[in-house]
Amino acid sequence: MDRSKTGATATKTPALRVAVVGATGYTGGELLRLLVTHPRVTIAAVTSEQSAGKSLGEVFPSLARLVDQPLVAFDPEKIAARADLVFVALPSGSAMQAVASLVGLGRRVVDLSPDYRFVDPATYQRWYAVPHRYPTLLAKAVYGLPELHRRRIARARVVGNPGCYPTAALLALAPLVKKGLMRPGAAVIIDAKSGISGAGRGASLPYHFPEANEGLMAYKVGHHRHQPEISQELARLANVAPPVVFTPHLVPMTRGIFCTIYAETAAALTPERALAIYRGFYKDEPFVRVLEEGESPQTKAVWGSNYCDVGVAVDPEAKRVVLMSAIDNLVKGAAGQAIQNMNLMCGYPESLGLTAPPVFP
Amino acid sequence: MDRSKTGATATKTPALRVAVVGATGYTGGELLRLLVTHPRVTIAAVTSEQSAGKSLGEVFPSLARLVDQPLVAFDPEKIAARADLVFVALPSGSAMQAVASLVGLGRRVVDLSPDYRFVDPATYQRWYAVPHRYPTLLAKAVYGLPELHRRRIARARVVGNPGCYPTAALLALAPLVKKGLMRPGAAVIIDAKSGISGAGRGASLPYHFPEANEGLMAYKVGHHRHQPEISQELARLANVAPPVVFTPHLVPMTRGIFCTIYAETAAALTPERALAIYRGFYKDEPFVRVLEEGESPQTKAVWGSNYCDVGVAVDPEAKRVVLMSAIDNLVKGAAGQAIQNMNLMCGYPESLGLTAPPVFP
Amino acid sequence: MDRSKTGATATKTPALRVAVVGATGYTGGELLRLLVTHPRVTIAAVTSEQSAGKSLGEVFPSLARLVDQPLVAFDPEKIAARADLVFVALPSGSAMQAVASLVGLGRRVVDLSPDYRFVDPATYQRWYAVPHRYPTLLAKAVYGLPELHRRRIARARVVGNPGCYPTAALLALAPLVKKGLMRPGAAVIIDAKSGISGAGRGASLPYHFPEANEGLMAYKVGHHRHQPEISQELARLANVAPPVVFTPHLVPMTRGIFCTIYAETAAALTPERALAIYRGFYKDEPFVRVLEEGESPQTKAVWGSNYCDVGVAVDPEAKRVVLMSAIDNLVKGAAGQAIQNMNLMCGYPESLGLTAPPVFP
Amino acid sequence: MDRSKTGATATKTPALRVAVVGATGYTGGELLRLLVTHPRVTIAAVTSEQSAGKSLGEVFPSLARLVDQPLVAFDPEKIAARADLVFVALPSGSAMQAVASLVGLGRRVVDLSPDYRFVDPATYQRWYAVPHRYPTLLAKAVYGLPELHRRRIARARVVGNPGCYPTAALLALAPLVKKGLMRPGAAVIIDAKSGISGAGRGASLPYHFPEANEGLMAYKVGHHRHQPEISQELARLANVAPPVVFTPHLVPMTRGIFCTIYAETAAALTPERALAIYRGFYKDEPFVRVLEEGESPQTKAVWGSNYCDVGVAVDPEAKRVVLMSAIDNLVKGAAGQAIQNMNLMCGYPESLGLTAPPVFP
Repeated sequence: MDRSKTGATATKTPALRVAVVGATGYTGGELLRLLVTHPRVTIAAVTSEQSAGKSLGEVFPSLARLVDQPLVAFDPEKIAARADLVFVALPSGSAMQAVASLVGLGRRVVDLSPDYRFVDPATYQRWYAVPHRYPTLLAKAVYGLPELHRRRIARARVVGNPGCYPTAALLALAPLVKKGLMRPGAAVIIDAKSGISGAGRGASLPYHFPEANEGLMAYKVGHHRHQPEISQELARLANVAPPVVFTPHLVPMTRGIFCTIYAETAAALTPERALAIYRGFYKDEPFVRVLEEGESPQTKAVWGSNYCDVGVAVDPEAKRVVLMSAIDNLVKGAAGQAIQNMNLMCGYPESLGLTAPPVFP
Repeated sequence: MDRSKTGATATKTPALRVAVVGATGYTGGELLRLLVTHPRVTIAAVTSEQSAGKSLGEVFPSLARLVDQPLVAFDPEKIAARADLVFVALPSGSAMQAVASLVGLGRRVVDLSPDYRFVDPATYQRWYAVPHRYPTLLAKAVYGLPELHRRRIARARVVGNPGCYPTAALLALAPLVKKGLMRPGAAVIIDAKSGISGAGRGASLPYHFPEANEGLMAYKVGHHRHQPEISQELARLANVAPPVVFTPHLVPMTRGIFCTIYAETAAALTPERALAIYRGFYKDEPFVRVLEEGESPQTKAVWGSNYCDVGVAVDPEAKRVVLMSAIDNLVKGAAGQAIQNMNLMCGYPESLGLTAPPVFP
Repeated sequence: MDRSKTGATATKTPALRVAVVGATGYTGGELLRLLVTHPRVTIAAVTSEQSAGKSLGEVFPSLARLVDQPLVAFDPEKIAARADLVFVALPSGSAMQAVASLVGLGRRVVDLSPDYRFVDPATYQRWYAVPHRYPTLLAKAVYGLPELHRRRIARARVVGNPGCYPTAALLALAPLVKKGLMRPGAAVIIDAKSGISGAGRGASLPYHFPEANEGLMAYKVGHHRHQPEISQELARLANVAPPVVFTPHLVPMTRGIFCTIYAETAAALTPERALAIYRGFYKDEPFVRVLEEGESPQTKAVWGSNYCDVGVAVDPEAKRVVLMSAIDNLVKGAAGQAIQNMNLMCGYPESLGLTAPPVFP
Repeated sequence: MDRSKTGATATKTPALRVAVVGATGYTGGELLRLLVTHPRVTIAAVTSEQSAGKSLGEVFPSLARLVDQPLVAFDPEKIAARADLVFVALPSGSAMQAVASLVGLGRRVVDLSPDYRFVDPATYQRWYAVPHRYPTLLAKAVYGLPELHRRRIARARVVGNPGCYPTAALLALAPLVKKGLMRPGAAVIIDAKSGISGAGRGASLPYHFPEANEGLMAYKVGHHRHQPEISQELARLANVAPPVVFTPHLVPMTRGIFCTIYAETAAALTPERALAIYRGFYKDEPFVRVLEEGESPQTKAVWGSNYCDVGVAVDPEAKRVVLMSAIDNLVKGAAGQAIQNMNLMCGYPESLGLTAPPVFP
């Protein structure tokens, strides 16, 4: 069949050879879905420990006939030999070592696990219950939220691709926090709702269709691992980081994260000014759309895409704001953002391969 | 709790004749579903303006062959002649007059519209954009949340059956507020998520399956009509009512409301003490189940039933609590609670006809 | 039909003590949901090997506080000592022995597994890959489809409760087949669609919410175990059983089976006559509703109930009929039908405890 | 923002200017989603009668900032002036005239309505209840199923883009019918299941989320308008067209069509031979994937893409086959196929702009 890239007409520079390590989870599958049509990329290797030897079509019937590479077990040297840049989509803990090996072999890595997201190895250890064995490499890693760290990402050897909840929460909060408009000391309350693909591809009872359908519940109330990640980045944006209260919920849909964030401002803020701040902050961003005042984002409007839609509602009398954001957890919350980071690292246009509109309905 | 089988008692007293005015919406249909097996009730009349002349089975195929009464247009005198007690399930505005007529004819009414929920007619007018034409009757109406107003409901001629969101929010908040444990002046933030049947049976674009499925959005941010209802009842529980921030969301499921409530306590509260307060407050309640500390309710665990499950998570250091509650919006949030009110008004066991367990999965 | 309220009768006879063996799957949970409000039943014991020692509320949050009995490991003697009648909801293979032990101890059993459904042990062995170790008991067991075998069920010691697909298919086919109206030799094509709870409570990849949602597929094409069950019962109804082509499909919903059946008639049949045959055949049945000609059943209209809705569409010129039926796979397709069988075995009104209407929407 | 096409690197030929007439339904929206990244196309105009003056982002929040053209009322002359090729996505009846006007003005048209699909105007009139006013143009129109009519499509002025059900049914049946392997006179039974977007964007009760969710029903049994379309094309493939029995069903999912087709073969066919026939027939097709024998397609595996997955199960003894196919009704069943037709008409690679993989999960 014709698998020529959409419009992959004459480029003179050779294609970037990429590998996906841990290709059979949802994040790995989504990377492949997006990379297949990326005009500057060749998929050079895909790995899986459990499915080594199988074709990708056996693991993802949607990808049948679309990726030629068979699944192989991960071997850092072989991967480094075949790929210029590697996406690591392994579970936390396993990623740590794989990334270090690949970097040691001279490869650049976008790590989709949490292993290279934290500035402080002690924070990592406290929340992930294992010590970080590569603190030096961790210190060099860059937190891969392009809207905040674009320039550092471009030069990074390792990018710690952000968690899905932090991506949605930080993009909603950044303008207000960075401008110093928050009431000092006031808590930021993040009520987050996620589709079930956020829990990964491992089947277990809470995600069994009959249990999840028509079901809605909070989980890990007060102790989800994305809370310290959000706090770390807010601390970088503000002089003093606000306390964060973070409650994730499971919602009966496949994709999508919606954050509703309650914050207090130091001074009264008019809706017009709030909107002007958000519009200004994001005016050159290819993937952030700021909605009209009081308008709510919709997970449906970003589904399958790298967009983050942001809404702002203001109560000037009460000096309160309600910030809302919606992303596709597998795209802007994972694989899409990883490719956005790859584009930055390689000097490609930042949105290359990511311009397909959301799929609606 | 009362687990006596539905109708396990032998009864010599004649059946209560009830009418459902506005029987073709979801609330009307749910009343009928529950009344069909209520051991003390005869369904004496069902009304609909648009479907008068049809059988109920034409409007609700699920009820085919289960209710003999044909749909008739509403005529207060005829209804009053046939029924001892009337459920009014009309839209706000229309209910006002219907209730007044029926009460004028000597009938007791449970009104499922918002028309008889407010203490202050000015509040009603401000939020519903029409003046209340029966302020005297309104003053006599009782807010039908049995867990808070059981004794007054028993004697009421008109019960204003609570909104679905207020039911879930108030049951989660009542113990803490009534015990005076909230930090004075601190806002109560209610992040509420609702299934789509809460929007009623009128088809329109946001509830069209392809638009709603995989969709999640906030709506009426900062100006939903259930906010003043919540505020009114909190004011009755506390000396000083806290400011309420209320954000409802639409979630792709048919039934269920989940409230996540963020509040601050005056003093540090241990998880044990918080739980003891909730357990004590609800210890004799047939329909409120208090979960273990940190455990989340699930809409699935109350689906189709009159239960409200309540969860409490405490952060003593921050003097913060996260309260969670789940109900079925059509049962405890509407028709089931209406029947619970009817039981109280008629001196029946409060849970009569409401003991069928939640439907799972 | 019998629409007497659940338990509207005053009873002097002591309650029937029942046990549910294998109480933690969906079928077991559904039995308990329905038995809790059955007016003549006491739940005397519930068993589970894996969850022995737990409360039912831990396994089914929906049943918290509703069933007092703790889960215990299955011990035939103890169960026989505590219960008059036993529902066995174990996997095929395990049920065989449990049923035999309980019957040996003098108890009557409704077996929800396939182990006692087949007339011929060789058929069982061919399809379930193990020999039947109790052929004598199997020979005495009665196939528990009350609409066809009511009188024999009443006297049975063991009832083999039908599979969900056979229930829906046979109720759609029975009138036509029994009246001898089918074209001899012509195949009956059964295209069946099932919600995912039909696959049981065991989490695995095809039923993982993100994989099942928005997914539709056929499975076991040409070799599903319910095919011989359907064939056996058709052979009893007809002189010569027609060949059966049976294709089950998985549909993204929790509950519900819909069968579309394509058959040929020996002679041209008018719609009026077809309908008259169906109406006549089912005129005294409490749980079968025959729809108007050409009208389709809806899974939604029987959801949560013991109803089977049947539709008939006729093409007289082509001598073809399209038969359609809808049931709730967990109620009429499993637990509700089991209780209907229990009622027959105990001389109770057949619909006792089963009169709650479908839950809509 | 950066809206440069994915890989829209240097092409010397000017872009094709296309218009979408009737851009606010699901088919129109899907055309735009796909055209936005098509490397050879410029979206020159989008029309809507009801939403003229609005931006596309108001009608489809997913498309906000992605298409610059405002919605305008349809004016054939203006559209002909601005566009080289026009997609008409109007309702049946309205499309007829619009297409004729545009062709009269020298434009080539892909019509997504049924108005230009039929060879015989009498068939159109019988099923669509209006006479065809442009029989001459109809006679020149080509049925736009590229796998069957590729060469004629390339030269057509008007392409009648196939219905969603016919696309899925015909691709499953074509190899067997064209090879003359069907038993003469035996009916072909097509049991089709569709997601709800197939019903269009008009909100009405059966598609209201709470009514459709957990609902499954047949509709238009024996008289759906896609039946004559299927029959027409089968007649072209076979010497004698088989009788077609077609039953569509509504399934609670947004996208996807699954056809299960029951047919009889003249001679016994082994699975190996059946598969060889299908593999051979589709060996050069970019968008048809033939699965292993007995394997079922999955709507999920083609979701959002232009693929049609086809499965074949054979019972040689009974001389019966079960054919299965899955498509995305909005892509291969509408907009994707329309673009495939456009590519053929314009001499572009047939899969240009359509190579993005299915979205999974």
